[in-house]
Amino acid sequence: MLLSKRVQDLSPSSTLQITALANKLRLEGLDVVSFGAGEPDFDTPDFIKASAIEAIRSGFTKYTPSTGTPELKKAIQEKFKKENNLQYSPEQIIVSSGAKHCLFNIILALIDEGDEVIIGLPYWVSYPEMVKLAGGVSRFIQGRKENSFKITVKEIKEALRPETKLLILNSPSNPTGAVYDRQELEDIADLCVARNIYVISDEIYEKLIYDGLKHISIASLNSEIYKRAFTVNGVSKAYSMTGWRIGYFAGPLEVAQAVKNLQDHSTSNPCSISQKAALSALTYPDEWTKKMRDEFQLRRDYLISRIDKIPSLSYVRPAGAFYLFCDISKTGLKSQDFSTRLLNEAQVAVIPGDGFGCDEYIRLSFALNLDAIKKGIDKLEQWIKQLPKKS
Amino acid sequence: MLLSKRVQDLSPSSTLQITALANKLRLEGLDVVSFGAGEPDFDTPDFIKASAIEAIRSGFTKYTPSTGTPELKKAIQEKFKKENNLQYSPEQIIVSSGAKHCLFNIILALIDEGDEVIIGLPYWVSYPEMVKLAGGVSRFIQGRKENSFKITVKEIKEALRPETKLLILNSPSNPTGAVYDRQELEDIADLCVARNIYVISDEIYEKLIYDGLKHISIASLNSEIYKRAFTVNGVSKAYSMTGWRIGYFAGPLEVAQAVKNLQDHSTSNPCSISQKAALSALTYPDEWTKKMRDEFQLRRDYLISRIDKIPSLSYVRPAGAFYLFCDISKTGLKSQDFSTRLLNEAQVAVIPGDGFGCDEYIRLSFALNLDAIKKGIDKLEQWIKQLPKKS
Repeated sequence: MLLSKRVQDLSPSSTLQITALANKLRLEGLDVVSFGAGEPDFDTPDFIKASAIEAIRSGFTKYTPSTGTPELKKAIQEKFKKENNLQYSPEQIIVSSGAKHCLFNIILALIDEGDEVIIGLPYWVSYPEMVKLAGGVSRFIQGRKENSFKITVKEIKEALRPETKLLILNSPSNPTGAVYDRQELEDIADLCVARNIYVISDEIYEKLIYDGLKHISIASLNSEIYKRAFTVNGVSKAYSMTGWRIGYFAGPLEVAQAVKNLQDHSTSNPCSISQKAALSALTYPDEWTKKMRDEFQLRRDYLISRIDKIPSLSYVRPAGAFYLFCDISKTGLKSQDFSTRLLNEAQVAVIPGDGFGCDEYIRLSFALNLDAIKKGIDKLEQWIKQLPKKS
Repeated sequence: MLLSKRVQDLSPSSTLQITALANKLRLEGLDVVSFGAGEPDFDTPDFIKASAIEAIRSGFTKYTPSTGTPELKKAIQEKFKKENNLQYSPEQIIVSSGAKHCLFNIILALIDEGDEVIIGLPYWVSYPEMVKLAGGVSRFIQGRKENSFKITVKEIKEALRPETKLLILNSPSNPTGAVYDRQELEDIADLCVARNIYVISDEIYEKLIYDGLKHISIASLNSEIYKRAFTVNGVSKAYSMTGWRIGYFAGPLEVAQAVKNLQDHSTSNPCSISQKAALSALTYPDEWTKKMRDEFQLRRDYLISRIDKIPSLSYVRPAGAFYLFCDISKTGLKSQDFSTRLLNEAQVAVIPGDGFGCDEYIRLSFALNLDAIKKGIDKLEQWIKQLPKKS
């Protein structure tokens, strides 16, 4: 066999086909509106760019310690303390090439052949693939729409098996925008402590949260869950720095040390210049991020006000992130069919829900400006009107 | 068990202990000369820095295609064609976060539990650890000093087993500086084709090669070995860009596609700004690199002229890279003991050979200026003189 087992049944990214088709139509001269973006449509702030340029000019272009510079780890330590009520030592903190890289490293360090990992459905596309790569088994729990797609402690309890080692939480969620509240997290934490389950808390959308809601890190709830939780974050979404590739996590020392060894031998340090940029992002006041968040909230409100007027679409109001997960079941179309036809017939790109595990949904990003949203929804509305009524 | 099997017996980097001790002594105010560097001591050239600054200013700070931008792949395609006589399609080329990352991805995509990988000894420290991470078994072949530590086709043939899937070659070599010639590579290629063995050719030191020798890519030798070879390279050593983290490889399409899926779900794209910097490095004339190489050759010649005068040390003249692998067996000391004592007693840092699989050797880098080399060797010479004669 040419390929190793672990890569043989990896799924390619589900967004790819739509993105490729959208690009093709654009090259043909068509005016495509894309709701596909997985990153903020803002430029990286100037104060961060200035720090990166200074790093380049001053020759900060060599190897750094493989898991991040001491000054960046210190800034992350302060961030966790101040914003998340979490105390970590520098040895517990690992800086990697994006939050995705952190998630992959933690899963490789924890999961053996046959270990089970609980993942709420809909899920971010890469979680199950990472579990496959480690030889583990994903056990999916279907989140109910009535509960904003969040999985409950009762549902998790029912899914537990002797093989269950890990639970992955993502709040605010991609693709639903759901945010877990304190009580929900406390209940889940108690169960994980009682049954000795580790938790990855993917908090990359932490700062994009609306309506005055507060983000809570599950690791901060008590000292027992702290010993079993990995708090994953990064600068990509909060500072519009997706291309720079800086993520970080903190967690139990023994695992952090194993991830350090893993990173030593697989990638070494994340880009030195990006580390200086991230340092700047984490040590300045958050005014820039708050302005971006307010803009996202305006767009969300406009987007849902428009979707409200389309009878065959429904959704759960996103409390965070920048996605609207939209129920298309009343159209009678499955997600790939819906997305491909919408793009071909009305030049509007959306992400089919099957990649997130939900084939009767599509994901609409609101990381595009209000004019584009208006234009795209105008087209979507017209296109849906001419669909045959579901029999 | 908290940790997965794959990370449980990873070795931490062997250079770490010496580097930490060297830093400690420096903080105490001591004047330490370090022969430990694994990266050029030159700053990244200004024309590359300028491209990166332009990328930042123009907002090239977002996601790119996960395996690299089309323009960077095109430049790599041209590089392979022009310099290595190798024709690859863009789909066969993968850009990752450093050549180390390429090696790790290829090994994860090829090696299953129990597969064997042939590695010459001394080896670069991370090869066996990557094989462990994939669940494979490293089969080491001790290179003979009389053959410049290069392994021969006869030795490889004897080491082959039904489980052998992959051979890792590294020319020019870290830590020995050995360079395989055309005949040696042709013999190895023929064996690999006959026995259906894949080859990773780690060519990261390609451009640092001395005495007018020519680097040869094994994949270029014939169309059969081309189908089984992975040509790995990067900008770190040739353009003093270690911190930027850009490596690349090309190889059989099916594996490249599997690595693409793997990278999609583990790290996504390498830093967008670094990709622009690498594009600039690969598309400018190589004058800068040639000057650096000439400087390294001068330093090598000086370093060996000095070591020649120390009776208890011997070495094989390095034909490439920037390391001298030095036999310390006549001192009667093992490599950790030698290195720790040399550092504590004479404030000279060298890398113990045990991390490369050779406990009677040390590695001296010549990526430091001539004055520092002179000072360091003066101290080393004095220190060795006062060692008791080996009984």
